[in-house]
Amino acid sequence: MSMANLGGNTVLANSAVRPIPVLEIFGPTVQGEGMLAGRKTMFVRTAGCDYRCSWCDSAFTWDGSAKDDIRLMSAGEIIAALDQLGGSGYDHVTLSGGNPALLPQLQALISQLHDAGKKVALETQGSRWQDWFKQIDHLTLSPKPPSSGMETDWQQLDEIINRLLQNKSQFCLKVVVFDEQDLYYAKQVHARYPQVLFYVQPGNDQLAEQEQERLLPHLLARYQWLIEQVMADKELTSVFVLPQVHTWVWGNKKGF
Amino acid sequence: MSMANLGGNTVLANSAVRPIPVLEIFGPTVQGEGMLAGRKTMFVRTAGCDYRCSWCDSAFTWDGSAKDDIRLMSAGEIIAALDQLGGSGYDHVTLSGGNPALLPQLQALISQLHDAGKKVALETQGSRWQDWFKQIDHLTLSPKPPSSGMETDWQQLDEIINRLLQNKSQFCLKVVVFDEQDLYYAKQVHARYPQVLFYVQPGNDQLAEQEQERLLPHLLARYQWLIEQVMADKELTSVFVLPQVHTWVWGNKKGF
Repeated sequence: MSMANLGGNTVLANSAVRPIPVLEIFGPTVQGEGMLAGRKTMFVRTAGCDYRCSWCDSAFTWDGSAKDDIRLMSAGEIIAALDQLGGSGYDHVTLSGGNPALLPQLQALISQLHDAGKKVALETQGSRWQDWFKQIDHLTLSPKPPSSGMETDWQQLDEIINRLLQNKSQFCLKVVVFDEQDLYYAKQVHARYPQVLFYVQPGNDQLAEQEQERLLPHLLARYQWLIEQVMADKELTSVFVLPQVHTWVWGNKKGF
Repeated sequence: MSMANLGGNTVLANSAVRPIPVLEIFGPTVQGEGMLAGRKTMFVRTAGCDYRCSWCDSAFTWDGSAKDDIRLMSAGEIIAALDQLGGSGYDHVTLSGGNPALLPQLQALISQLHDAGKKVALETQGSRWQDWFKQIDHLTLSPKPPSSGMETDWQQLDEIINRLLQNKSQFCLKVVVFDEQDLYYAKQVHARYPQVLFYVQPGNDQLAEQEQERLLPHLLARYQWLIEQVMADKELTSVFVLPQVHTWVWGNKKGF
């Protein structure tokens, strides 16, 4: 897309040149959760979020603690950084946050990644729509349960899901579950969108634990608890229960 | 399908009435590996295998040690057993072994499960074809690497994969990796069938270990090793690396 052809379309022109606020670029590593669990991928973590989840495992993307680390990058600069890390050994990039759906200018990055033969995944909570959602190869919507302290905008989520279904997008819903109330919320989500691939995942309530020997038995117990709940629940049939595999392997370290 | 309508087709008639040798029926639980990792499912484990993998984690299906436990069951009896365990809380059944592909009579079970609204997954090594493969909803082919002591019949595997591609089946390849030689084999498989969804999985070389506290760190280390190998390998890009999640949770116990 040549800028010269955009004419008076300043929105598009702006979004094409507006830099992308980036906090982390890392990989190749494995996607640790959801429908692409295990997939070799690169990660681009954007800064900024419209949510403030009480248990957010990436709070540095929105709480100001890492604001000096934010790099304002062009799509080309991000791809150069990805290529430097991944060389010819990657074909998949995951956009995570924060909430990347706040950034219309990701359109340019997605197009350029596709031009380079890479697939693109997105992780977002489903609070905002961007037209570039239609070009995402693997899209994960993770609406947040009551324990997060956030409120789901169901009308907005309905609209996003309808658009993705119309677009025949490959996407899933993923709900993190910390307690019975969250599980009840997860069941509501599944009942509302029964045709959408559905994942539940035990929440990590030990984000400060640095000792993997203490963290792992706890995470295992939380996963077992969630499996037991789902297996006993007659309303939850077409469901996946998966842990955060990367947290089992690397604990609460950043950049894996 | 009414038996009366079969006329002289004794092959079909036989396969419809021939009982199915079953060693385990259990669930609901989560699928622990591969493209359906985390999926709530029931398991039917059939007896008998054409392979004798050195590290088989279900050797009781073929080594004679459980021959007195084999039950010869009709499709209806198997479904009754599944319903007794899963009630209305399941919609997915995984056929595993042994090698279920040795059993033409599984056709009847698959049809009856579909009639009851259940999806059916199959796990097989890709050494034998059955026409009912075309009706399987999620099919996993797991050709065995050198450490197994088995030889892959590439011509047979080619043919099976071609038929599944023609049928537009949802299927994947999954290779268990114990060592560098196995990884080299995995790379050959991926290079031969680049269009097929591809999983590698670290092998469990501690099948006798009953202490979960000793087993888990070992399995984690094996998974980390395999991740490192794959991440560093430029030829392995469109690849999933997943552990056997069920072994992390339940160790070497049977029936999970």
